[in-house]
Amino acid sequence: MVYAIGLMSGTSLDGIDAALVDISGKNETTTVKLIDFLTVPFGKPTLQRVREALSLEHSDVEKICSLNIELGQAFAQAALDVCKKSGISLDDLAFIGSHGQTLFHIPFARDTFYASTLQIGDPAIICEWTKTTVVSNFRERDMAVGGQGAPIVPYSEYVLYQKSDTTRLLQNIGGIGNVTVIPKSGEITDMIAFDTGPGNVIMNELCLQFYNEEYDKGGTYASQGKVSLALLDELMAHPYIQKPYPKTTGREDFGKQFTTALLEKWLLEPNDFIATATMFTAKSIAKAVQPFIAGPTELIIGGGGSYNQTLIGMIRTELPEVHVLIQEDLGFSSEAKEAIAMAVLANQTLQRCSGNVPNATGAKKSVPLGSITYY
Amino acid sequence: MVYAIGLMSGTSLDGIDAALVDISGKNETTTVKLIDFLTVPFGKPTLQRVREALSLEHSDVEKICSLNIELGQAFAQAALDVCKKSGISLDDLAFIGSHGQTLFHIPFARDTFYASTLQIGDPAIICEWTKTTVVSNFRERDMAVGGQGAPIVPYSEYVLYQKSDTTRLLQNIGGIGNVTVIPKSGEITDMIAFDTGPGNVIMNELCLQFYNEEYDKGGTYASQGKVSLALLDELMAHPYIQKPYPKTTGREDFGKQFTTALLEKWLLEPNDFIATATMFTAKSIAKAVQPFIAGPTELIIGGGGSYNQTLIGMIRTELPEVHVLIQEDLGFSSEAKEAIAMAVLANQTLQRCSGNVPNATGAKKSVPLGSITYY
Repeated sequence: MVYAIGLMSGTSLDGIDAALVDISGKNETTTVKLIDFLTVPFGKPTLQRVREALSLEHSDVEKICSLNIELGQAFAQAALDVCKKSGISLDDLAFIGSHGQTLFHIPFARDTFYASTLQIGDPAIICEWTKTTVVSNFRERDMAVGGQGAPIVPYSEYVLYQKSDTTRLLQNIGGIGNVTVIPKSGEITDMIAFDTGPGNVIMNELCLQFYNEEYDKGGTYASQGKVSLALLDELMAHPYIQKPYPKTTGREDFGKQFTTALLEKWLLEPNDFIATATMFTAKSIAKAVQPFIAGPTELIIGGGGSYNQTLIGMIRTELPEVHVLIQEDLGFSSEAKEAIAMAVLANQTLQRCSGNVPNATGAKKSVPLGSITYY
Repeated sequence: MVYAIGLMSGTSLDGIDAALVDISGKNETTTVKLIDFLTVPFGKPTLQRVREALSLEHSDVEKICSLNIELGQAFAQAALDVCKKSGISLDDLAFIGSHGQTLFHIPFARDTFYASTLQIGDPAIICEWTKTTVVSNFRERDMAVGGQGAPIVPYSEYVLYQKSDTTRLLQNIGGIGNVTVIPKSGEITDMIAFDTGPGNVIMNELCLQFYNEEYDKGGTYASQGKVSLALLDELMAHPYIQKPYPKTTGREDFGKQFTTALLEKWLLEPNDFIATATMFTAKSIAKAVQPFIAGPTELIIGGGGSYNQTLIGMIRTELPEVHVLIQEDLGFSSEAKEAIAMAVLANQTLQRCSGNVPNATGAKKSVPLGSITYY
């Protein structure tokens, strides 16, 4: 077993996640144990510069050049912090996998733009500050073999969750819902991943408009409402829900505009509206995963939606033959999941093993991901 | 011996240089032989997009994201082209060193900007298209140990030119002049590199203003003029010329503005003006290299200025004790020099050997440069 660190910063800009893991093996024999985890929020000036670099209007080549190094230092510091927190010496650290900060992603070529993805956070700085080999820039290689460069976590999910006697459905409920299917005794090539439809996005927008609250904490409002079957039928008829996988969606499909249009058309009590939106998320997930249920099946829920008990209850009702759990029930950390994945991918790459899942990204083949900066 | 390719695209945007070399050994035992070389000019739309990406006004994150992949494809194609030209199969290729296209360089931190450098041209694409391991992004690691990330070629110059019984002064005469000093029997830590002052920049500006010509071809205009000793004295008193090394300068110091001011102050015949500017370049080079002459010494001139016979003659006169040669006299290719250097640096990195020259970049230590994308 060797110590490694995975570093991740998501599009939500909450900060840099650093997961210290104990990892060994490769491919199907990989074992990973989370030792420690922390999130280092960006300093205010850095956050402001990241926001500028993300914006078409305010970004420019000088800002991106400088920010690549500034974020490299921030990632390096997060790695040093998680070592210090856990009392692990840098000498005991074998490698770091760093995702970087995504500044832009063009999944498909359009007009004069190439299919491309841009992550920054200079690996050379991380390497020098931590005196440790760094693997970085994971997504480009998947795109070089025709993939979309996303999702990038399914390989790690396979390693962490694959079970010989149970089909496992990893359902993330963030703004949007997405599922990764890991068939029992399945090869990695049997994995499937796609977006199930809305996660919390509609519920959250309703809470904001009705109660000026960010979300329905614990699902309390939904538990007090009554589902409108008429509205639910209309929602379930949405073309995205009816479409078979592979498919991806985003906040642009089920966000503010979508919800505002519903509010104009349907006159319901606030809690009835929220209950119906909650049931819509539950039913759309159930419909999406139904074809993959075969024998003993677990639906393992992560993301903010896993703390909405009304939602979880509705999913259980919709899927009586499935064992519905949340990540924490299995001892996994929902918040550390992506950072852990970066350590798993780096471990693969250093052993020249592949790390993408073609069924998930659309890539033509499995390839090792990322570039190695040796200390 | 193994085949390798070095890829380079300079700030002049002439295109992508691809040098196919036969390379073996490492550190002082490295031997390199140039097998073939070509320059692939950028297509017009690509060139336009590179220019936009270089500009503070027209660049943005989306353009840079896309161009990274577009240039990755262009670099990959240049590698394929030089293989095809020379009849070498991809199977016989051991690795590629790719510099990428520099979009921006901030040698020292200022205001809210970090010392940083940005090269693009996705190595994952080059790796997949050529089925070959790629080493890329050489400059960041030098900056991570306190260097300026430039110049990047001195290590390769050491390997190619070091001679046990002769001090060699590699003088490049581009817009600006720069010299690399390789003392006889010297260690790499004895190497020195700095900018000598103007190269062709003043002569070229004078030719443009007097004759609407790009440069003084072969030094013909200068050969027909008479040097003004008064102007020459004023020029040689320039603070940059008087300053000891380490020092760097740029077109901003000796470019259009500088030359225009001279033209306003000094009323000379065109060819006398050009002859004086030529003598200024010759004398400033002689003054810069004088302290390093010790026993048998060769001054090996490369760059556009090496084809200006009047300039070369003046340098010979100024340095009677030095053997003045041009690159081609030694069988080296001036135009392939930087691309060859990328293959040399990649060869070092793959064997975990260092590739920067701290005396040249200001780095605190020698480090392997770049990140490795394994095929």
